[in-house]
Amino acid sequence: MERAQRLGLVGAGTIGGGVISLLDEKREYLKEKSGYDFKVVFISTRSRGTLVDPDGLDLATIHRALEEEDSLMSVPGVDASRPPLADLLSTTPVDCVFDMTPTNYETGQPSLSVLETALSSGAHAVTCSKGGVGLALHELKGIAAKNGCQLRFESAVMSGTPLFNLARGPLAGSNITSIIGILNGTTNYILTRMEDGLDYAAALAEAQERGYAETDPTGDVEGWDPAVKVVIMAAEFFGEKVRISDVDREGITGITRERIAAAKAADRRIKLIAGIERTQFGIRCFVKPTELATSHPLASVLGSTNSVSITTDTLGEVTVIGPGAGARQTAFGMIQDAMHLAGIEI
Amino acid sequence: MERAQRLGLVGAGTIGGGVISLLDEKREYLKEKSGYDFKVVFISTRSRGTLVDPDGLDLATIHRALEEEDSLMSVPGVDASRPPLADLLSTTPVDCVFDMTPTNYETGQPSLSVLETALSSGAHAVTCSKGGVGLALHELKGIAAKNGCQLRFESAVMSGTPLFNLARGPLAGSNITSIIGILNGTTNYILTRMEDGLDYAAALAEAQERGYAETDPTGDVEGWDPAVKVVIMAAEFFGEKVRISDVDREGITGITRERIAAAKAADRRIKLIAGIERTQFGIRCFVKPTELATSHPLASVLGSTNSVSITTDTLGEVTVIGPGAGARQTAFGMIQDAMHLAGIEI
Repeated sequence: MERAQRLGLVGAGTIGGGVISLLDEKREYLKEKSGYDFKVVFISTRSRGTLVDPDGLDLATIHRALEEEDSLMSVPGVDASRPPLADLLSTTPVDCVFDMTPTNYETGQPSLSVLETALSSGAHAVTCSKGGVGLALHELKGIAAKNGCQLRFESAVMSGTPLFNLARGPLAGSNITSIIGILNGTTNYILTRMEDGLDYAAALAEAQERGYAETDPTGDVEGWDPAVKVVIMAAEFFGEKVRISDVDREGITGITRERIAAAKAADRRIKLIAGIERTQFGIRCFVKPTELATSHPLASVLGSTNSVSITTDTLGEVTVIGPGAGARQTAFGMIQDAMHLAGIEI
Repeated sequence: MERAQRLGLVGAGTIGGGVISLLDEKREYLKEKSGYDFKVVFISTRSRGTLVDPDGLDLATIHRALEEEDSLMSVPGVDASRPPLADLLSTTPVDCVFDMTPTNYETGQPSLSVLETALSSGAHAVTCSKGGVGLALHELKGIAAKNGCQLRFESAVMSGTPLFNLARGPLAGSNITSIIGILNGTTNYILTRMEDGLDYAAALAEAQERGYAETDPTGDVEGWDPAVKVVIMAAEFFGEKVRISDVDREGITGITRERIAAAKAADRRIKLIAGIERTQFGIRCFVKPTELATSHPLASVLGSTNSVSITTDTLGEVTVIGPGAGARQTAFGMIQDAMHLAGIEI
């Protein structure tokens, strides 16, 4: 890496704020330990204002404004006019765009447009949104290849806990034959609390109180969130174009306290397992409540933690357990992706 | 990578045979999927003969000879005179030396000499032996730096299950604050079987029968093996020069069936935990039988499986569970290291 990487950020909500905070905190460490030098040349948001400075924005000031007002409007030089990303990229070119927009499973927007625009401009892109990569990973990779840039999405699954970078780096040369995991922290939290004796409604209410579950919990409890993650993994690890509707999907709304208690009495535990297996007819993608023996590595994954077991032809089964969410963890995965795209050597 | 990497192998025992077999099996896959092209230009052994061919040896023939006779002596062109490694390297230069010699905790030999000779010649080196890197990692890295080459040792801990390459790649930019794990499969197997009701002597005898434990099991059951792994991790992750005698070490020979049964009754499990913590006086390195709640992620690591939990400032705790031994797994870690050293992009 010869010069400071120019970064453009899209979104300044919880995750965007986390990225700004972690970039600010880690600047010296990343430069000294990894040789990664950067400047943030723009931050573009839908309703919080836009900031541009080709010489690099002052992240400490911006972080403070977001903490105090959840907005950039008080920051000197803010542009409230919402300039389109394509315009920003043409006047202020970047090496890498960070897409931190929310996930929409159906339209993929706004992530899809952000990634298309970024990659079409020749900039690398990193995203934590499952919208764009869940709907059109192959197409987005095609745009990237045509423009000599790349797309990374470590934080779209298990936040920054290594999965895609693990397969790309330390597992390179291995052939992945199957992958199963607990990829949704909200449902795992609800199931854990139901095992403690709560019924579904009480456990859901508690998850909502703690901020794990949304007011409309459908995306989690009906399994849409882990299903889109399976779609992304199928594309990345198996080269297969799977639609979310092709995933054999069952959520946890039908799980009763009685069923959980019966499993517990038999030294078993019900987990919402997501995965991909090779079959003689191709791959099978599924999200299904599954009874596991309590001695199974995935059975000990409790609360909002996530986990994935990857079976390869070289090592057999390798399991990774780590945080499944969190602004700091998600920010880390995205910065990690950007570092690799800048050619930081491992 | 512009041309086929020239590899020199030292050792053709169980692990050496595994490397030869996996290199042969994976040649096309590695070339096509990762762009890693190689030829093995020499294989040097202490008692099985030496083979040299600057154009690349025929690995299928060599693998067959090892399978059938545990020797290279029947392979056409074999040299039974045991030429020193330095001579081989001066007549047949390589890009990377694979050190697959056995571990000696006290002298570090023969691994120490192999690595010194390889790195002094300007070749990269990868090793699965804990002897050299356990005694003198700092010194070996110094030799490497002076000669413009590098040393890697993924397979010295948890065979090829990603640990060092995980920290170097997908966790780059993180600060590791503590690390604990189950790093010895033999003692973990014995403890697992004792929980099933066997006493120590019966469990050890079974581990020996299955080839997990050596005839003299001291290195495992007294905790020397996990202790030297802690020394290597202290050097790599904390930059600290720790001697194996500095590790607060306790093996499993004092663990009774009664103590295990009492723990089990309290829903707990005894594991031989190895680790490193930061304290106000520096780092503390330990290997100690420890009672864990059965819900702890490390408690579900059974039999000969290994596991490590890494705490970082970016993600919190990330746990990796995978094979702790095996010729194929160890071979994979070494090939992985060699691929990274050849500049294979991730």
